[in-house]
Amino acid sequence: MEDLEKSREKAANYRISSAVIKRLPRYFRYLRELLEAGRMRISSGELSKMMHVTASQIRQDLNCFGGFGQQGYGYNVKYLYSKISEILGVEEHYRAVIIGAGHLGLALVGSPMFSKRGVTLTALFDNSPDLVGKEYGSLHIYDIAELDTYIKRNNIDIAVLTLPRMYAKETAERLASLGIRGIWNFTNVELDLEELGITVQNVHIGDSLMQLTYRVHNADEIEDTE
Amino acid sequence: MEDLEKSREKAANYRISSAVIKRLPRYFRYLRELLEAGRMRISSGELSKMMHVTASQIRQDLNCFGGFGQQGYGYNVKYLYSKISEILGVEEHYRAVIIGAGHLGLALVGSPMFSKRGVTLTALFDNSPDLVGKEYGSLHIYDIAELDTYIKRNNIDIAVLTLPRMYAKETAERLASLGIRGIWNFTNVELDLEELGITVQNVHIGDSLMQLTYRVHNADEIEDTE
Repeated sequence: MEDLEKSREKAANYRISSAVIKRLPRYFRYLRELLEAGRMRISSGELSKMMHVTASQIRQDLNCFGGFGQQGYGYNVKYLYSKISEILGVEEHYRAVIIGAGHLGLALVGSPMFSKRGVTLTALFDNSPDLVGKEYGSLHIYDIAELDTYIKRNNIDIAVLTLPRMYAKETAERLASLGIRGIWNFTNVELDLEELGITVQNVHIGDSLMQLTYRVHNADEIEDTE
Repeated sequence: MEDLEKSREKAANYRISSAVIKRLPRYFRYLRELLEAGRMRISSGELSKMMHVTASQIRQDLNCFGGFGQQGYGYNVKYLYSKISEILGVEEHYRAVIIGAGHLGLALVGSPMFSKRGVTLTALFDNSPDLVGKEYGSLHIYDIAELDTYIKRNNIDIAVLTLPRMYAKETAERLASLGIRGIWNFTNVELDLEELGITVQNVHIGDSLMQLTYRVHNADEIEDTE
């Protein structure tokens, strides 16, 4: 039977709504910029302007995690940043591989976003003889045939899928059987492996393009009727 | 002075909340898959399962655009798809260029998402002598020095920014002065050009990575306390 403290912990985990979770990475980004600029404190009003979210929404979001602000004093940037990092699992230092060394895979290798978020890229995988055995950045490109051995030996937590969509499902299932904990899926095939105990984050960049065309389209219409 | 009909139109435009706008591209994606699979009708219950949104939310969303459903009959997939395409501006046939022919830029060239969303890519731009003058896919890579002339001559609506972040702001301002209507910004520099009358959609792929690490982290915690 669970004791009271544990059920309280669980309740606290569940209380963070998915809308807040979607805003957390943005807080993380803005706070990091403030830190890098040497800022020590920030008011909810200033954060509100940066984030395009109301100040009361900001206070409400941050209160979810225990209320770090003081009236008339603002938030301590460093403390807030480390607290949000902790909630987001940045401190966990996950190890990741990229599967698919095409342009998208290689574009990701060059990005500083992994290290900023506590994720270390350790290897690339591909099935093309032209690529296998080469180095890119500081990473080695392995043959996809070596995937099973590599994942097990190197305690890999996360796989980034940037391979052609026809290989998406079989590769994801293979990764699940190897004990991978999370898949960051760029293949545009909707993967759902919850029942295998694996977390999948599907990326649909096209949705962002549609938001752009919608807004461009709408901006015209508003202009036209004015 | 505006007449009554026009103010009704405006009201209808404004009534679509930003939460609905974020869901629309997903409706578009699922409906397209249904169309390609030859499905003619779908119930709100089925759409609900696909989208992980409640059936009543679906009915409410779709009612915003005039209620296409019939009780006990479901939605007409083709009609719903074309209506949502229209709202999203897919029918507008926008013309776009990619600025920055690095791995990310080239990864986008290969993607079918543009044509599916009514956007035609017409050219790539870069400043590297190694790239300028070459062809990639069916696109020519132009010197960035030719940008002004090209944009004006070819009625370009949208620019995709995949160049290094240090060039982001100046390039965006230059594009605004050339009459570009939308910028799809992958540089991770937060651009705000609303006052110049230009729509910017900032892409922060790292936010998606953080949602993944958060969910992996949280899945562990839930398991741990059980």
